[in-house]
Amino acid sequence: MNLLTEKLNLTYPIIQAGMAGGITSPELVAGVSNAGALGTIGAGYMDPPSLRKLIQKTKDLTEKSFAVNLFACSLEASDKGIRPMQGRLNLYREELGIRPGALEVEMKDHLEEKVQVIIEESIPIVSSAFGVFPNAIIDLLKQHGTILIGMATNTEEAVLLEQSGYDFIVAQGTEAGGHRGTFDVEKHPKGSNIGLLVLLAEVLEKVSIPLIASGGIYTKKQVDALLGMGASGVQVGTGFLAASEAGTNEPYRKALIDAEGEDTVITSVFSGRPARAIRNRFVTEMESSGELIRAFPVQNELTGDIRKASAAAGSSSMQSLWAGQGVGFVKKIQPAKDIIQGLVTGEKELPK
Amino acid sequence: MNLLTEKLNLTYPIIQAGMAGGITSPELVAGVSNAGALGTIGAGYMDPPSLRKLIQKTKDLTEKSFAVNLFACSLEASDKGIRPMQGRLNLYREELGIRPGALEVEMKDHLEEKVQVIIEESIPIVSSAFGVFPNAIIDLLKQHGTILIGMATNTEEAVLLEQSGYDFIVAQGTEAGGHRGTFDVEKHPKGSNIGLLVLLAEVLEKVSIPLIASGGIYTKKQVDALLGMGASGVQVGTGFLAASEAGTNEPYRKALIDAEGEDTVITSVFSGRPARAIRNRFVTEMESSGELIRAFPVQNELTGDIRKASAAAGSSSMQSLWAGQGVGFVKKIQPAKDIIQGLVTGEKELPK
Repeated sequence: MNLLTEKLNLTYPIIQAGMAGGITSPELVAGVSNAGALGTIGAGYMDPPSLRKLIQKTKDLTEKSFAVNLFACSLEASDKGIRPMQGRLNLYREELGIRPGALEVEMKDHLEEKVQVIIEESIPIVSSAFGVFPNAIIDLLKQHGTILIGMATNTEEAVLLEQSGYDFIVAQGTEAGGHRGTFDVEKHPKGSNIGLLVLLAEVLEKVSIPLIASGGIYTKKQVDALLGMGASGVQVGTGFLAASEAGTNEPYRKALIDAEGEDTVITSVFSGRPARAIRNRFVTEMESSGELIRAFPVQNELTGDIRKASAAAGSSSMQSLWAGQGVGFVKKIQPAKDIIQGLVTGEKELPK
Repeated sequence: MNLLTEKLNLTYPIIQAGMAGGITSPELVAGVSNAGALGTIGAGYMDPPSLRKLIQKTKDLTEKSFAVNLFACSLEASDKGIRPMQGRLNLYREELGIRPGALEVEMKDHLEEKVQVIIEESIPIVSSAFGVFPNAIIDLLKQHGTILIGMATNTEEAVLLEQSGYDFIVAQGTEAGGHRGTFDVEKHPKGSNIGLLVLLAEVLEKVSIPLIASGGIYTKKQVDALLGMGASGVQVGTGFLAASEAGTNEPYRKALIDAEGEDTVITSVFSGRPARAIRNRFVTEMESSGELIRAFPVQNELTGDIRKASAAAGSSSMQSLWAGQGVGFVKKIQPAKDIIQGLVTGEKELPK
């Protein structure tokens, strides 16, 4: 019996990662769930009405279950010391023909309202990153029978998630694209970056709830190896960025297909949190600028207009090109169901 | 048919890594080979007469084959700009009660002489790190029927090794302890650091010679997963540091047993080349000192007396405590044959 497929009523023990920032379109999430895996809405930065709309649109496209992913940390922040960073970022804005950045930033958190939406919409599975939800939220979700999936990048975090009542743990290896799920980024400024094969072995020893392996997974052989080691399932992010249904913009898609494994780097320049991305001009210039990167989520807010304008201009040079190690396996755009088939049968292989 | 066990005449597809610096005692190398795996003399820094002596001592202890590991790069170097580094290092020397460092360093290479010793002693297997041997050495070794094993940290390096006539490739994941095998450390100052599960999948696609997986391997489950993915064998380093037969000094042994997975870091402070070690006082202080680390192998030469004196003083604080991710699995000192049994049967488990 596979604990993940049984409990989540899936055909395949595969989860589409809850990538934030417009990637997880209703078409992608529904496409994944309809194909027998678990689709996930990445709602980290989303406001509550947008989340509700996206959930409802997704429901229109599938009768299967899907999950919502949230950040288990507050996004409330203000920062009056952003002037030097904005000065530098304005150089990019000027080049892109967009307005200079504001000199103060004030951000609100909507975690509780989003949890309310999730409960009202009867979403059966919620996953989180960056920490452990507050007890009140965990209790509330559990009262409604919600299954909780937390992300851990080391054993310490995994133990915390288990102790807090989570049902499953995603063990995120250093190979993973996008944000490191690491809880304490002051202690681990580059994130906690353990190779998946070690992390999985370590976490298996320390917790008794089932584990989902994530980071750099593109092939059936890898999936079989991880299930053989004791994982109950796998979570795939980068692979689904190249799904035809995904909200990935065109220059980003092109960068994914052109990239080789050596091109990724862990950087905080986009969001203030360490994340793995394909190296591009923005990463290289910002890392060598010496400018103090603002904390998450302020830095994310500051760079948002630049990333959007870069995409709109058809360029990958100033976007956050989140991607995992092994991105070289992404060779073409294909429907989510074919990506899942590739992972399951090895026939429609993701690597061409 | 397993290509590694067949060709190398082994009972188990396990190689003891050729760790340099006095770890690979004749007792360890012979113990590993006698137990059915492949022992390796780490001869990277060794002079030719010492290598010959060690080979002969090992032959006294086993009739089985064993390998010799060499650096596939020249150790010839001179550096007249070491004064600032020596100034800093003298602070440690003073504390340890040893003499101040020299102000010039001049190092010789002995690769050709060591290859001559290997041929004269009829060593059947030679492994290398840091690059590809010069063609003349490859030709010479092949004329004598020597099997060549090269180490790669990315697909580019793996392709180079295959094209140069190597017989096997060790795919070294970022998890591995000790030196990154990366060829070009100017291009990759921290080394090329791909998680093993991705690296193995990538290299399997690019080369047709058999692969040996390495980095963070401590358990039978990991071995099975890697063989299942298509590796012909595994190479284990950190696990054997805790072998009773190894030349590992006492404070180093203690540090290995006390360490948790999160304690390792990739640093160049000991040798001038990126290597994974347990973080200690020397790493933390040197990394924050801002002092320019000299190139390999000069930095290695400069810190040698300090590392030795630290060990002699019973301290782990100024030694290079090479260790892989997952070092937390090392829980006790045990004979090499029990470590091998743990990897093969899962019964005498390395993790207690």
